Amino acid sequence: MPRRIDHVAIIVHNLEQALTFYRDTLGITPSEIKEVPTEQVRIAFLPMGGPEGSQLELIEPTPSNASLTKFLTKRGEGLHHLCLQVDDIDSALNDLKAKGAAVLDEQPRMAAEGRAIFLHPKSSNGVLLELLEKVE
Amino acid sequence: MPRRIDHVAIIVHNLEQALTFYRDTLGITPSEIKEVPTEQVRIAFLPMGGPEGSQLELIEPTPSNASLTKFLTKRGEGLHHLCLQVDDIDSALNDLKAKGAAVLDEQPRMAAEGRAIFLHPKSSNGVLLELLEKVE
Repeated sequence: MPRRIDHVAIIVHNLEQALTFYRDTLGITPSEIKEVPTEQVRIAFLPMGGPEGSQLELIEPTPSNASLTKFLTKRGEGLHHLCLQVDDIDSALNDLKAKGAAVLDEQPRMAAEGRAIFLHPKSSNGVLLELLEKVE
Repeated sequence: MPRRIDHVAIIVHNLEQALTFYRDTLGITPSEIKEVPTEQVRIAFLPMGGPEGSQLELIEPTPSNASLTKFLTKRGEGLHHLCLQVDDIDSALNDLKAKGAAVLDEQPRMAAEGRAIFLHPKSSNGVLLELLEKVE
C-alpha cells in the first residue's frame, strides 16, 4: 500500500547545532528551515536522492510542545518517526482500522507535507509510523 | 556527500511476527529474507519506491549477537539505524575523521549490501548512522 519512504524524522534539541553535523560535516544541503506552528515544531528539511528521493527531517520542538519535549527528556535525541507516502490516506486509514492496527488519528490531520495519520508503535514493532498523502 | 537514503533498519525480536504487520497489514512485499552470518542477523528486505527508492530492513539478531541482543533487551524493538549511500566510502571515512566525527570503524567493513562504516550516535544527534558504498 505505501509507495515509498517519504521522510525519516530525527528529533533534536537545537536545529542549528544539529545542522553543524548534518549540513557542515556530512554535507547535506537543507532545502528549507521553517517553523510549523500547527505542529509546534521547527523543521529543517534535508532532501536526498533527487525528486523521487526520501528526505531527512530534523525536528526541534518549540517549548509549548509538551509531548515532544517529554520525548526528548525521556529518550534523548535520535530517530523519532518514519513516514511512508500513500496515494489515498482515507482508504489507508479505513484499511488499517479494519485490520486492527492501533491508529492514533480518527481522521487525517494536516501535517507539514499533506494529510497524515500516525500509528502507535505497539502496532508496528516499536516504530512511530506516519502515513502521508501528499498535497501539492 | 551522501547521495541518498539507502535503508532504514528496524530491530525486531522475530522477523516472521514483524512481517505480519509490515507485509500483511501494510502491504509491503519483501524482496528477500536471509541470514547474514557475518553480521549475526536475519534480515527481511522491504524495498519501496522503485529502483532508486529507499528500503526498510527488518533485522532480527541471532542469539550469538551479543550487542544487538543487548540493544533489544534495553531499548526494545524499533528504529535502529539509518543508512546513507556514498560514492566512495574510503574518501568519506577520511573526510569524517578529519572533521572529528566519532567513526566506529577504522576501516570499512563488509555489510550485507557493500562496504560500510558506522558513526557513533554521539556525533549524529543520537542517530546510529551507517554510510555505505554499494558493491554490485
